[in-house]
Amino acid sequence: MTMRLPALAAGAALLGLLMMPDNAPADEGMWLFNNLPRAQLKKYDFEPTDKWLEHVRLSSVRFNSGGSGSFVSPDGLVMTNHHVGAGDLDKVSTEEKNYLRDGFMAKTHADEIKCKGLELNVLTDIKDVTAEVEKAVPAETPAPEAFKLRQAKIAELEKAAANPEKKIRADIVTLYAGGQYHLYTFKKYTDIRIVFAPEKQIAFFGGDPDNFEYPRYDLDVCFFRVWENDKPIKCEHYLTWSPNGSKAGDLVFVSGHPGRTTRANTVDELKYLRDTGYPYLLNRLNRLEVLLNSWGNRSEANMKRAEEELFSIQNSRKARIGGLAGLMDPALFGRKIADQKRLEEFITKGSTPEAKAAAGAIEKIAKAEKVRAELIKDMTVLENGGGFNSSSFGIARTLARAAEELPKPNGERLREFGEARIPSLKESLVSDEPIFEDLEILKLADGLQFLAVTLGPDSDLVKQVLAGKSPRERAYELISGTKVRDPKFREKVFDAIVAAAKDKKPVDPAILKDPMIELAQLVDPTSRALRKRFENEVDEPKRQAHSALAKAKFAMDGDKVYPDATFTLRLAFGTVKGYKEDGKEVPPYTTFEGLYKRSAEQGNKGPFELPKRWVERKSKLDLNTPFNFVCTADIIGGNSGSPVVNREGQVVGLIFDGNIQSLVLDFIYDSETARAVSVDSRAIVESLRKVYDANDLADELTGKRK
Amino acid sequence: MTMRLPALAAGAALLGLLMMPDNAPADEGMWLFNNLPRAQLKKYDFEPTDKWLEHVRLSSVRFNSGGSGSFVSPDGLVMTNHHVGAGDLDKVSTEEKNYLRDGFMAKTHADEIKCKGLELNVLTDIKDVTAEVEKAVPAETPAPEAFKLRQAKIAELEKAAANPEKKIRADIVTLYAGGQYHLYTFKKYTDIRIVFAPEKQIAFFGGDPDNFEYPRYDLDVCFFRVWENDKPIKCEHYLTWSPNGSKAGDLVFVSGHPGRTTRANTVDELKYLRDTGYPYLLNRLNRLEVLLNSWGNRSEANMKRAEEELFSIQNSRKARIGGLAGLMDPALFGRKIADQKRLEEFITKGSTPEAKAAAGAIEKIAKAEKVRAELIKDMTVLENGGGFNSSSFGIARTLARAAEELPKPNGERLREFGEARIPSLKESLVSDEPIFEDLEILKLADGLQFLAVTLGPDSDLVKQVLAGKSPRERAYELISGTKVRDPKFREKVFDAIVAAAKDKKPVDPAILKDPMIELAQLVDPTSRALRKRFENEVDEPKRQAHSALAKAKFAMDGDKVYPDATFTLRLAFGTVKGYKEDGKEVPPYTTFEGLYKRSAEQGNKGPFELPKRWVERKSKLDLNTPFNFVCTADIIGGNSGSPVVNREGQVVGLIFDGNIQSLVLDFIYDSETARAVSVDSRAIVESLRKVYDANDLADELTGKRK
Repeated sequence: MTMRLPALAAGAALLGLLMMPDNAPADEGMWLFNNLPRAQLKKYDFEPTDKWLEHVRLSSVRFNSGGSGSFVSPDGLVMTNHHVGAGDLDKVSTEEKNYLRDGFMAKTHADEIKCKGLELNVLTDIKDVTAEVEKAVPAETPAPEAFKLRQAKIAELEKAAANPEKKIRADIVTLYAGGQYHLYTFKKYTDIRIVFAPEKQIAFFGGDPDNFEYPRYDLDVCFFRVWENDKPIKCEHYLTWSPNGSKAGDLVFVSGHPGRTTRANTVDELKYLRDTGYPYLLNRLNRLEVLLNSWGNRSEANMKRAEEELFSIQNSRKARIGGLAGLMDPALFGRKIADQKRLEEFITKGSTPEAKAAAGAIEKIAKAEKVRAELIKDMTVLENGGGFNSSSFGIARTLARAAEELPKPNGERLREFGEARIPSLKESLVSDEPIFEDLEILKLADGLQFLAVTLGPDSDLVKQVLAGKSPRERAYELISGTKVRDPKFREKVFDAIVAAAKDKKPVDPAILKDPMIELAQLVDPTSRALRKRFENEVDEPKRQAHSALAKAKFAMDGDKVYPDATFTLRLAFGTVKGYKEDGKEVPPYTTFEGLYKRSAEQGNKGPFELPKRWVERKSKLDLNTPFNFVCTADIIGGNSGSPVVNREGQVVGLIFDGNIQSLVLDFIYDSETARAVSVDSRAIVESLRKVYDANDLADELTGKRK
Repeated sequence: MTMRLPALAAGAALLGLLMMPDNAPADEGMWLFNNLPRAQLKKYDFEPTDKWLEHVRLSSVRFNSGGSGSFVSPDGLVMTNHHVGAGDLDKVSTEEKNYLRDGFMAKTHADEIKCKGLELNVLTDIKDVTAEVEKAVPAETPAPEAFKLRQAKIAELEKAAANPEKKIRADIVTLYAGGQYHLYTFKKYTDIRIVFAPEKQIAFFGGDPDNFEYPRYDLDVCFFRVWENDKPIKCEHYLTWSPNGSKAGDLVFVSGHPGRTTRANTVDELKYLRDTGYPYLLNRLNRLEVLLNSWGNRSEANMKRAEEELFSIQNSRKARIGGLAGLMDPALFGRKIADQKRLEEFITKGSTPEAKAAAGAIEKIAKAEKVRAELIKDMTVLENGGGFNSSSFGIARTLARAAEELPKPNGERLREFGEARIPSLKESLVSDEPIFEDLEILKLADGLQFLAVTLGPDSDLVKQVLAGKSPRERAYELISGTKVRDPKFREKVFDAIVAAAKDKKPVDPAILKDPMIELAQLVDPTSRALRKRFENEVDEPKRQAHSALAKAKFAMDGDKVYPDATFTLRLAFGTVKGYKEDGKEVPPYTTFEGLYKRSAEQGNKGPFELPKRWVERKSKLDLNTPFNFVCTADIIGGNSGSPVVNREGQVVGLIFDGNIQSLVLDFIYDSETARAVSVDSRAIVESLRKVYDANDLADELTGKRK
């Protein structure tokens, strides 16, 4: 499930850093389509032709909601994961028709349902514009001026290449932390319709218990169709279906959009994560999981209110456990140490200006990480709101801060209150998503206890926050007393703040008279001071040091290595291959037979309950059909929905997850046990025909449609 | 479920400290039967006669397995909780008959099933022997000599009063930390037979989600019968059934055996628990709960292996959350501060030798708590084994230490290897309780990660423990490599150690050649050093200081107050009364109707599934019958199964739990929201008649049997 890029992170990933290849295993890398590791691929006796590359690239699709996909028919059919399409299925569902839960199938093109606000991009061209960007900034220009000049050039190049009328989008992608600038031109599609989705129960069979695990049995697929001018598009480039699928040992390729990796982390940063950051975060996730799970188990109504948040916590928890396990592996950690040593030697030698400029950068980061470790607990409870864990507090703080920030000139505000963000800020404030009073009390009471334990129950701030009450009593008092859960109240307050700022008048204090807003005001000076210290002593020095290190690395290795992920199109490759766990071989493929067996062993209950159709159609299915498989390709969140193709560029699978061992790929590639998990192409066709009677769709995929 | 005293703690609770009544709420206290708070009871216009007291006392029964009970018919019928009898039901169950899960009913006396190793005690006499014990120790005798003389006197008095042939047991109970010594004489019964138990599903309806919660719907009852000379005994004293039950506001009494309270904790000890001990323990419990729950959810087979441990973790977690919430209540904490201030003033005044002797004791405890906070993390992972969380390590360490300890003279050994403990140590070592390899790997891998995070992955000890592997790899290697899971291997090793010690020869090192035993040996020096420091700098100074404080308190208040719980018979009292939670009234009674409603709302699933009989017989039941109720009586673990009686000494209920707010009663009584939870006597009779067709038993209870 992490293979989908979280929506919020999608925008933040456009600045990529590079990582080092020196002692890298053979299948490592999220490669640029215009710079493949041809030597590495030779070991597989495979040389991709330009035509092959162009075909795969133009058949690949980016879901701007945070995933990947591919064209799989000449009529604009797009394949992705059910969990990538989940948000869109949800948006078009109604009280009567729950497409996310129950699935959907369009009998004809006319039945296809138009999505709300979904944008797909196809990467039509890549041009290296590094020289042009660099030319715009004369040598020796001071930093702020250089930044301005560079941004202006980038905007100019983007504008020249874009063509809104023809739906051509152009982005300059910063690679290697500024070592290269590439101009990416995209064809943009905005009329996307839903063709087919299975039931969530089979798409996410096994639920949280099987999430990130393997063996696995998920039909995590759905199909969209791209329309233009009110009819399906005709595509020149689309992936054809492999007639035979894959087998163990086969070389396969993954074409998709990995969102963000941090493989440029220094050893000190990894040690921080391993020794402090992850253990601390895991404590917190465990605490919240137990809190919500035990409250949820008290009633079905409770569970309904808590389950979305609970699932997201469980998902994070598994991800961190996998990441921490990887960081605790001395073999992997040893590779990071060796990589860094090589870089340090290059820097010490100082044979290039970049190497000289990077002197002391590693130490600067080490120092920043010490401050980070020192501040993490207070930051978590105060600025990150963990000590006031509730939607009500989040809203109250936004209002309290808006009143303080909006009267300031734009450049002096906290960044989330920048003028450009005001409309979306208001939109989120007036959203009428329900907030449940009982769940709010539960979470806030727990948060206040967490605050008291973190800062000490006898600290002045905690005493002021609790106002002589126990955390539970105080949480009840605050939640039952605040009006911020009412969207109308929020809108009224926010509008008043905006109006006052416009008129350059102070906000009428009466408008902010609410116990939760007052609490936010009480905490704010301490919280802001902490944030400022964090930004000055952690974020900023690290940003500078990483920029210097990335430049030194680029000077050392150039583009022989791949840049960190940027949610732009990359090609990964590997082989279909099982792995060893606790001394036992985990085979690469599962089958439909395994699905039925797993469901039966679990009493067909909960996340292991099969949809009715799957029970009824069992006898029709070829139970030996491969269902899911694993391969060694290097993927990360954002790769969800990526096609897996063979040497001929034919579809053999569909990426939907990584195993728990793959969660270390954020920091470092591992070929021993980290695996990408795919739906097998044969399972897709077999289930379309035998379970869903979707022969037309299966024919369209396999090229049999007349 | 905590109201049952954990079996292991049962033996340790015989030394009681006293607590302070000064600003205590009216219903506070676990009173001695020979020293009741008559003034406090006057407010209820109730004066217990000696006859009333004797009758209730002689009708009360102690389950030496860790609970309470009462005679409820002239034919030796004993009532207690299902969860108190659970161990006994389990012991007599077979592959075919699962009495714990499915319940049991004896149609005739001949059908009653004899328990294995269950002992019941009835307190026949209490005698204050303080003067005699004190006379045995001349003034100014130095401490070790005084201890010896006192123990000798105690043994002499116990021996004189006991009569094994007549099954008379005699214990000297140390009250007020030595302020008083009472000689308790018990009639001992050992032929106990099972008469009736309902299905576990109704006894523990709601399972973990409803554990410690209220409203509640549990038929947590079972009946035993006391036999002697192969027939049921005739009792002179037994509790009769109230014809009308109780109602809100009624004065009720609880006669039972609270196991252990620590109300003598100083403010510094409470702060340690509040700020360090409980939060740290909760982090660990959360971690283990998430670990076992997520692994258990992966398959039914996993859950079967993990569920017992998982439930016990959840139970502890709830208990700590409740305790911590109480400690975070400034009102309760304020009372503890006021209590201590009064004691400090008494000590400062120094008007008695005890007050003088207690000078500095509070400060000594404060200092010890600082060391405790400093050592807690290392103690947890090393000496308490949290860093090697597995049965295999526990066994391996016992063997490794036995080899080191047994050759030493008895007095110099670690206390768990004292000569007297060797037989039970061997018994536990050769037990063939299954140990599951997969669960062991899971737990040990998590433990090793916890160890690495606690001591730092770069510490020498951690590096030696992990031997260049990741925690998971190392756990797999250790668990798959060790032989300690084989009881025969354990027996062979232990016998060899004992034999070598007897012959005063060193153990053949070859016998200890096992990767897990070697790991235990590797860790042991560090672990022992830590333990020694903890004993010398925390345990011992605290023991001394508490003894001095208890004597000072006794000098200040005498026996106007009740002593801390000692798993001996006490009388608590209170009123049937609801409470407020998050601004809402929680009414004191639930009904059968509520049971069916709760089950239906939860989809009749999991812990909310009703036994078949309860579904079938619903229409026969009077759904308005009160099912469970709460009262303000002061109870704690060990009180499980205590009868709740009215002014007439008639049964109106059966204690089985406390609400989550009551979990602070370990440290301090609270009448605001802390409540004891009981099964209503009317529900017992109604369900016996209408659900179980157990009219004979119901008649016996209500005195209608011919």
